[in-house]
Amino acid sequence: MLRYRSGLIDKVNPVLRNYKFTRSLSSVPNFTPAGKLKAVQLNKHALNAKYAVRGSIPTKAEELRAKLKSPAGKELPFKQIINANIGNPQQLDQKPLTFYRQVLSILQYPELIEKKELGKLFPKDVVERAKILVENTGSVGAYSHSQGVPYIRKSIAEFISKRDGYKAHADDIFLTTGASTAVSYLLSLLSNGKSTGFMIPIPQYPLYTATLAIQNAPVIPYYLNEQENWSVNPKELGKLCKENEKAGIDIRALVVITPGNPTGSVLKQEVIEEILEVAAEYGLVVIADEVYQENIFKGEFVSFKKTLRSLQERFPGKFDNVQLASLHSTSKGVSGECGQRGGYMEIIGFEEEVRQQILKLASISLCPVVTGQALVQLMVNPPQPGSESYELDQKERSAIHNSLKDKATELYKAFNEMEGVECQLPEGSMYCFPKISIPQKAIKIAQELGIEADEFYCHELLMSTGICAVPGSGFGQVPGTYHVRTTFLAPGNQWIYDWQKFHNKFMEKYRE
Amino acid sequence: MLRYRSGLIDKVNPVLRNYKFTRSLSSVPNFTPAGKLKAVQLNKHALNAKYAVRGSIPTKAEELRAKLKSPAGKELPFKQIINANIGNPQQLDQKPLTFYRQVLSILQYPELIEKKELGKLFPKDVVERAKILVENTGSVGAYSHSQGVPYIRKSIAEFISKRDGYKAHADDIFLTTGASTAVSYLLSLLSNGKSTGFMIPIPQYPLYTATLAIQNAPVIPYYLNEQENWSVNPKELGKLCKENEKAGIDIRALVVITPGNPTGSVLKQEVIEEILEVAAEYGLVVIADEVYQENIFKGEFVSFKKTLRSLQERFPGKFDNVQLASLHSTSKGVSGECGQRGGYMEIIGFEEEVRQQILKLASISLCPVVTGQALVQLMVNPPQPGSESYELDQKERSAIHNSLKDKATELYKAFNEMEGVECQLPEGSMYCFPKISIPQKAIKIAQELGIEADEFYCHELLMSTGICAVPGSGFGQVPGTYHVRTTFLAPGNQWIYDWQKFHNKFMEKYRE
Repeated sequence: MLRYRSGLIDKVNPVLRNYKFTRSLSSVPNFTPAGKLKAVQLNKHALNAKYAVRGSIPTKAEELRAKLKSPAGKELPFKQIINANIGNPQQLDQKPLTFYRQVLSILQYPELIEKKELGKLFPKDVVERAKILVENTGSVGAYSHSQGVPYIRKSIAEFISKRDGYKAHADDIFLTTGASTAVSYLLSLLSNGKSTGFMIPIPQYPLYTATLAIQNAPVIPYYLNEQENWSVNPKELGKLCKENEKAGIDIRALVVITPGNPTGSVLKQEVIEEILEVAAEYGLVVIADEVYQENIFKGEFVSFKKTLRSLQERFPGKFDNVQLASLHSTSKGVSGECGQRGGYMEIIGFEEEVRQQILKLASISLCPVVTGQALVQLMVNPPQPGSESYELDQKERSAIHNSLKDKATELYKAFNEMEGVECQLPEGSMYCFPKISIPQKAIKIAQELGIEADEFYCHELLMSTGICAVPGSGFGQVPGTYHVRTTFLAPGNQWIYDWQKFHNKFMEKYRE
Repeated sequence: MLRYRSGLIDKVNPVLRNYKFTRSLSSVPNFTPAGKLKAVQLNKHALNAKYAVRGSIPTKAEELRAKLKSPAGKELPFKQIINANIGNPQQLDQKPLTFYRQVLSILQYPELIEKKELGKLFPKDVVERAKILVENTGSVGAYSHSQGVPYIRKSIAEFISKRDGYKAHADDIFLTTGASTAVSYLLSLLSNGKSTGFMIPIPQYPLYTATLAIQNAPVIPYYLNEQENWSVNPKELGKLCKENEKAGIDIRALVVITPGNPTGSVLKQEVIEEILEVAAEYGLVVIADEVYQENIFKGEFVSFKKTLRSLQERFPGKFDNVQLASLHSTSKGVSGECGQRGGYMEIIGFEEEVRQQILKLASISLCPVVTGQALVQLMVNPPQPGSESYELDQKERSAIHNSLKDKATELYKAFNEMEGVECQLPEGSMYCFPKISIPQKAIKIAQELGIEADEFYCHELLMSTGICAVPGSGFGQVPGTYHVRTTFLAPGNQWIYDWQKFHNKFMEKYRE
């Protein structure tokens, strides 16, 4: 039985008191239905956002994949779609690392630990790791702390300390749903409308411009130097800061992607130092997208964190104001666990009140997926020499790494053999971004079709070979140049030869 | 060797050409470091967002939990923190359903399927289900379609068709990261600044007002009728639409939460019909937050989708314009798998161009976690009679359901026995939202402390008993009334008696 009492509610909202649910719609209701919402009425900033990695070419590829399964598929000049549009290793032939998956399997069903068959199924170190994670995480079905499980944050801090030789702290770590959530939190919090700008490399991963479009914050593009293997020119950054300051734009942050997406370039320490000098001078937040840090094929990965700490050590007081957010993910590297949505960011140098705001945004989304958090712990703590899983794990890692390296070299050579194509050596990440001198005739046709010339090229490539690559215009490029981004994940080499054959025909067809 | 060629880039950006990385910071750099970013400079709309479920009281509770582990913890008048602030069943004593976790365990490590010990570890139907999911999903480590795995969307459509008796379609289903992501996509896309309003129930789950604050879109509150067990008054909705239309506010959407959070009320079909009548008349999008649809303790759950289809059938042409987004999640119900971040939304009646924009937003985040998607498939397709897992699964489900029901009844009775407390019967969800007549003396102290009176009450409750509940002011309430939201998940009854004792003392202390 419910009790009723008179209360303040009666005074505030008298219409509520007398309402009884007696009416039911038994006769035709007497109203004229209003119109539906049209796209033009939607959030104009969201409408402006573009995301080419899953844009028109990949959408067409999905249609063709469906067509291949139907009788009409026989008419197509290829038998399969080659997804070279997205860094999604396990969609293709990359197998997950056994150690990761064995531990995650037990985390999902910890009752396995009590089974007597356990020893026949899992190596000892797998079981040990799973026990530690169960103990410190509890059920993977419970929300964790919004910043992530404390134990896992501690593990990540230890990994960073070891990687860089400078101490990292668990309180500075935020677990995220892939690295995309980190980007979303940071850009949405740091932007404050049209007067706050963000320096974004061109070419860039389109998550950045898409998120900034939604925030209605100006993108301040800085061009990567293709002929210096897509490196950053810190002088240009300083110049842009000065120019924008004069124009009344407060540049809030500088995004750097190393190893580069879509460029495959790896920034050198001296360049990072000069970038940090600009950040210190102009008070910029540095967002270092370092998700490809394991994908290194030439030289070595140098983290922004390490470089910053080294500068702070060498030049006391000069770099203490730098605010750095460094992003990492389980989606890339030899892990390639995109669908598990694990990731983290380390934020250092921020005012505590700003950190609290980041935490608030994370809290509104409750918590990152807990299995993804556990996977981050495994990524930063792989099996060590002497443990049961070590040998197999090393073998699997090398195989993945070598296969990527071979494919990178293969593609790099193949592109540079093609007429009018120039490709920089991919030092890291998963992508080549060759420049293609598209003939004027083809450019004219693209103009008539109302699309970019590189989109026309990718469309023709897809329709002739089934290869799905993304037009450079989706990532940004120097006006008048045309590029294509391709991953080097697709199995075998036949598709590379097919691309060469297509390219020759394309050039022949549209030659002046 | 890299090849260099003159190209368009030289003409566009001459500074790049001559740049060489010869400089390195060996001498003290010559600049004055700028200041750090302050919170006041951040996105003003994000600063305005509030999220009480993880606000000041839960933060204090975490401090106390840490203190309990230290020697200083002995001074505290309680031995543990009771988390009654968040619907997080597996953080407390709720066990996950065995069937779910067994299937997920195999999905993480499909090699188990080949092991000869398999039959001793998992029932046959678990293995069968895992095989089907592996076949249709591929690796859980691969990005899926941004809308979710097609097979899982088909499963969800079948579940909805069966639940409602009206056909649902896989194309209308979007898998999401919990239900929170769905809310974020919808509100950010539908809002277009200050002239577009959203009708939100008061009290509400604060995700809605927090997300709208970030979007800078006006919240148009509609008050739930506490004395009609927190039901909706559709007449008030129509009145608000008219008033806002006159004031130049275009109301875009109406949020309805059933079963209610924080209210525990379940909307009846006749009320839903009248709400939909308002939606049809004014062209509103209806966002039906139905994540607690399994948590029903009295009466039955009626979905907005079913009610809409029934109206469309009975009154042709009158309701075809209604645009409905219905949200569901694996976090609640008997599943309680919060940390796995599974969820979906069904969107019907939207223009195709609007649907494409929702898909674009989903694409920017790449895809919802794939294990979470698999879990949704398990939730909507539990073991059937005759299968090996059926009996245990039923037993586990009943135990969870009955325990929640008992605790709900217990709490309801306990609150109504307390002086000056009035609690509606929780018909569903996981919460009680009792109204507390806080004495004037206590209200005055709260005012002096600069906090809400219900926050003062919750603070005192926490400091005396270790019980962490959330002040009603975090959810919204009729001005001048005070409430507290508590989950009914915490194990045992002792904490309920402790609350009663605390309450008596509190009333005694502050009695006029």
